[in-house]
Amino acid sequence: MPVRLWDLAAAEDDRRFSPYCWRIKLALAHKGLEPETIPWRFTDKDAIAFSGQGLVPVIVDDGREVHDSWAIACHLEDQYPVNPLFGSAQARSLAYVFKFWTESTIHPPVLRAILNDLYAALHEKDKAYFRESREKRLGKTLEELGADPKKAVADLRTALLPVRQQLVQEPYLCGQHPGFADYILFGPFQWARAVSPQRLLEPDDPVYAWRERMLDLYGGLARKAKGYPVWA
Amino acid sequence: MPVRLWDLAAAEDDRRFSPYCWRIKLALAHKGLEPETIPWRFTDKDAIAFSGQGLVPVIVDDGREVHDSWAIACHLEDQYPVNPLFGSAQARSLAYVFKFWTESTIHPPVLRAILNDLYAALHEKDKAYFRESREKRLGKTLEELGADPKKAVADLRTALLPVRQQLVQEPYLCGQHPGFADYILFGPFQWARAVSPQRLLEPDDPVYAWRERMLDLYGGLARKAKGYPVWA
Repeated sequence: MPVRLWDLAAAEDDRRFSPYCWRIKLALAHKGLEPETIPWRFTDKDAIAFSGQGLVPVIVDDGREVHDSWAIACHLEDQYPVNPLFGSAQARSLAYVFKFWTESTIHPPVLRAILNDLYAALHEKDKAYFRESREKRLGKTLEELGADPKKAVADLRTALLPVRQQLVQEPYLCGQHPGFADYILFGPFQWARAVSPQRLLEPDDPVYAWRERMLDLYGGLARKAKGYPVWA
Repeated sequence: MPVRLWDLAAAEDDRRFSPYCWRIKLALAHKGLEPETIPWRFTDKDAIAFSGQGLVPVIVDDGREVHDSWAIACHLEDQYPVNPLFGSAQARSLAYVFKFWTESTIHPPVLRAILNDLYAALHEKDKAYFRESREKRLGKTLEELGADPKKAVADLRTALLPVRQQLVQEPYLCGQHPGFADYILFGPFQWARAVSPQRLLEPDDPVYAWRERMLDLYGGLARKAKGYPVWA
């Protein structure tokens, strides 16, 4: 029985936009696993009540429930040691630091850059939940947060400096081969691609070339997904 | 013959404050090496002209010159594989990302927090060079840069979020044992400690407990160095 993954969807069932779920879809492909994905909306709390919490990704693997993208990555690494996502204990610890860096430094400007498009793409039943939860968490209205996408894009490009330096010298953040840190950083780019025509990177940016490589992985898994392929 | 290390000194020969040299002193100790350190000032360009450039750290190991702290770490890892600084190719790549993160995110607020004390501690012959090079690089006068140490400390504590999350769950950034990423982050704290009584961290901060562990490593190598041990 394949791994089952509850995967955040927009108004359309096949527009999947969660950066946290994208990490996991790439990690599953990295391990050679083809999950059955179940479209899920923010307000479908009952559907994942069995996990004891209300957020995706949630997986069921061989009868075992795992939630939280980091816990899922560690579960996959420990259950399927072939094709390591980390490669050493030190790499796992540094990827954990990298996760918090990405979520605190890269996710916010990407969100501000795509927020108007993201809100428009949501399922109608999710819009009130999304507005209330994000406005509470971020202390601003969605209109304030999405007021200056141009500045958000500029902030994003500045924030990418540490990864850009690495991508000048190796093809992936994790070196010659992609690893979980690559999937962590790719998440917010695929989040944007799923819902917005916003151009986040210039073609001469080493991060752009890396993103192209990421879109090509696993038979074009991310490139084929519903989104705005205006970057090509 | 021991490794020789040219090591930045303040007015006093034994007040060593370079965050880049501290990385290397801890990496050498990690490898069980006891270097001969040579006090050096910013304006002693002739003394390291043999390296083809003008910055420390510079080492000579078995007749071979290596400069740039990252190149030195890689040299040590490749020449002395026992006690790995990285542990895997992926960890080395992620440590390289971490290096740029630390230098772009942690070094600037530490510098602003300690700048007045740092300038006062410099050797007289270095002061004009330091002022001119830093004002040119940073686009502000030293007085402007050092005008609000309190805000700099607040900015630093905010910027430490990604590493704080890791240090809640493991004793070191690199996991159960320190690695080069720990030495990279420790550099700016030891930079501060060498020249300034400024209190950068609160004792209940997990980063504070980590810094205590770092000060204890290798027989208290960093703790015994000349500085301001007001944090205890």
